[in-house]
Amino acid sequence: MLYEHRTHHCFAAAIGDGGLTEPTYRLLIEDAAPAIQQLRDDRNSGALPMLRLPGRRDDLEALQPLAARLRDDFDDVVLLGTGGSSLGGQTVAALADYPFSQRKGPHLHFMDNVDPHTIDAMLAALDMTKTAFLVVSKSGGTAETLSQFIACLSTARAAVGEAGLADRFILITQPGDSVLRRMGARWKLPILDHDPAIGGRFSVLSLVGMLPTMVAGVDPFEVRRGAESVLQETLGAHEPGESAPAVGAAISVGLLREHGIGTTVLMPYIDRLGHFGLWYRQLWAESLGKDGKGTTPIRAMGTVDQHSQLQLYLDGPRDKMYSLVTLAADGRGPRVDPALADDPSLDYLAGRTIGDLMAAEQKATGETLYRNGRPTREFALADLDAAAMGALLMHFMLETIIAARLLSVDPFDQPAVEEGKVRAREHLAKIAT
Amino acid sequence: MLYEHRTHHCFAAAIGDGGLTEPTYRLLIEDAAPAIQQLRDDRNSGALPMLRLPGRRDDLEALQPLAARLRDDFDDVVLLGTGGSSLGGQTVAALADYPFSQRKGPHLHFMDNVDPHTIDAMLAALDMTKTAFLVVSKSGGTAETLSQFIACLSTARAAVGEAGLADRFILITQPGDSVLRRMGARWKLPILDHDPAIGGRFSVLSLVGMLPTMVAGVDPFEVRRGAESVLQETLGAHEPGESAPAVGAAISVGLLREHGIGTTVLMPYIDRLGHFGLWYRQLWAESLGKDGKGTTPIRAMGTVDQHSQLQLYLDGPRDKMYSLVTLAADGRGPRVDPALADDPSLDYLAGRTIGDLMAAEQKATGETLYRNGRPTREFALADLDAAAMGALLMHFMLETIIAARLLSVDPFDQPAVEEGKVRAREHLAKIAT
Repeated sequence: MLYEHRTHHCFAAAIGDGGLTEPTYRLLIEDAAPAIQQLRDDRNSGALPMLRLPGRRDDLEALQPLAARLRDDFDDVVLLGTGGSSLGGQTVAALADYPFSQRKGPHLHFMDNVDPHTIDAMLAALDMTKTAFLVVSKSGGTAETLSQFIACLSTARAAVGEAGLADRFILITQPGDSVLRRMGARWKLPILDHDPAIGGRFSVLSLVGMLPTMVAGVDPFEVRRGAESVLQETLGAHEPGESAPAVGAAISVGLLREHGIGTTVLMPYIDRLGHFGLWYRQLWAESLGKDGKGTTPIRAMGTVDQHSQLQLYLDGPRDKMYSLVTLAADGRGPRVDPALADDPSLDYLAGRTIGDLMAAEQKATGETLYRNGRPTREFALADLDAAAMGALLMHFMLETIIAARLLSVDPFDQPAVEEGKVRAREHLAKIAT
Repeated sequence: MLYEHRTHHCFAAAIGDGGLTEPTYRLLIEDAAPAIQQLRDDRNSGALPMLRLPGRRDDLEALQPLAARLRDDFDDVVLLGTGGSSLGGQTVAALADYPFSQRKGPHLHFMDNVDPHTIDAMLAALDMTKTAFLVVSKSGGTAETLSQFIACLSTARAAVGEAGLADRFILITQPGDSVLRRMGARWKLPILDHDPAIGGRFSVLSLVGMLPTMVAGVDPFEVRRGAESVLQETLGAHEPGESAPAVGAAISVGLLREHGIGTTVLMPYIDRLGHFGLWYRQLWAESLGKDGKGTTPIRAMGTVDQHSQLQLYLDGPRDKMYSLVTLAADGRGPRVDPALADDPSLDYLAGRTIGDLMAAEQKATGETLYRNGRPTREFALADLDAAAMGALLMHFMLETIIAARLLSVDPFDQPAVEEGKVRAREHLAKIAT
């Protein structure tokens, strides 16, 4: 496996009263069997096309010339889109595109907000002759994305003329009539199809996530290979306990049911997984948070949040479960030169690497949490590469779908967000131009 | 006032069953009176030096030559430090140092983690002859900061020689013996005093936050002026209801007591307040999360999280209160050219600015939340400048201290985090060098 899912310290047998009891767990893991059967059926029937993506290569091969052109011809590539249109690409691209990275290719920017200050600054800072835009809206009608798109189109047209737009703007939206598609036709811009049966928060393995991934220089085939390995483990499981995502879902729902644990903290100890935490937040919150149900995801970051949130986690209310994502960091990074660390109180650091310190911190925090009766699991990675990223993505997508089935909610809808969109249009209509 | 604190929609009279009732609120706001009296006493006696910082100028004037030298002489300035040593500076510096900003002066980097991959990349990317380091540890013994410091010292010494180190490394730590101070003496590095009576999470207005602020080119006097205006409002209040922070504390604790609302969501609609949310998370979590008490802070971001978390917020468990931070954005940012938005379904956007859209989104989300019975308050800003930033910082520091008094916990300690630090040292000692 590309990760090891260590769940021992979520159970009462290991951590006492705060943990999940065996009978509740057994009940829930048995309930996961029909959810897994449903996944098998959906993969076979094609009802959930996201489950077929990991095994596909043709669509990625078709994208390669475009990705190569974006990498070769531009200094900056800006993705306009929000929520599921943006988070997947950000998550995987971060493998190559992190602070101080010196990779080749254009700078990637994800404009997922409509802060006028930021957009003014972006349009002033970028050279429109050397900038390309990916405009992503599944519905083709997202107000934020459309307003960004029109603002960028105005600025780019002034810089490169109408003839230059088709090279610089690429639209991704579902088939069928929409305002984005009509605008694309009007300006003769290339339009790529967003699969209408893949919701934004499950779209990371589709072109929505994979095109930015390719622009960043990360191998999308490896991402899918990692995802496929996790999917096969679950689809091929003889019993649900062999599926790591099913085990995770049963633990999470069980802790909610037994202990009212309504908050779930995802805490990676790897900077490059910072966006992963944000992607997970949407996936979990939007899939499960309905009908008064669901648990609240929190994105934490080790070791940073040990200096910010650990006091609350250890000594505050017992309403959280913890998922650490750790990396075998021993021996990595710069070594603490013993000649500089010659102070006796630095003996514990002298000659160690920064990675040794990270490894010790990961281990210590996990221990401190579970020894204080806090249910804690670990996703242990030997390496964080494209395949491991794909494995994590698929784990959490499957865990979310199975948890939704255990909670009896539909993982694929988001009925409550429409009201806010309608109200926003009403308010906008009232503002005098 | 530099912000308007709108709390109407937290109350049952406005939003129904999910809101706070008047009797509970009245009880708690009366309980805030001794907390405010304590603040007055602590300011007068000097027991809380953080309350005297807003009125001081001498310490900032003394820092000006150093800040000017850092701005003039270096391409990069790296802050090594974590938690309270880093978050305050990041928060205020973000006013000038945001994506696409084209300000003058060195690039600022906040290295608050010990991910070996990131540190390797940082040391490889930066030109050590043009890089300065601020090393911040209140205790002078933080393992993460010390190991970063030694790694950077090694690399810099190889590049600029021992004689060049004193220009490039500036240490900030409390007086008295510590390993950081001993190392500073050994390498003849300048050392600035961290006030031992100002805890990290309350240190933003001290040199810890203000030196990075000055390097970024933000006016620290204005930040303090804004903070002082809020402090004076609270210290001069004839009754606690005249203090916005006391009102906020009473509402927060009241919602917890009456409805078990254990999660508090801070959702700014301003990109430059992204770090503010992280600063607030530490302040609130570490000050209140003890003895099984406290509520869990969540940092959200509007409009982004409308596309990620709003489904959960509106339709999931009723366990959250919401604090929106909004900006009068109408008319700001690029205008949506009606000639490009000539599709009938874009009538609501054509001729509007991106800021109009942001204004409508803020208003719509607030309304949608409170109309669904979710307690929602708003911090309405006419502008986000240095003074408004100072006002927000002081509001939340005072609200946190008063809430702690209402919960009967000590806002200034963090007893539970020591265990993890001890364990980390034990694990590190076990790793073979």
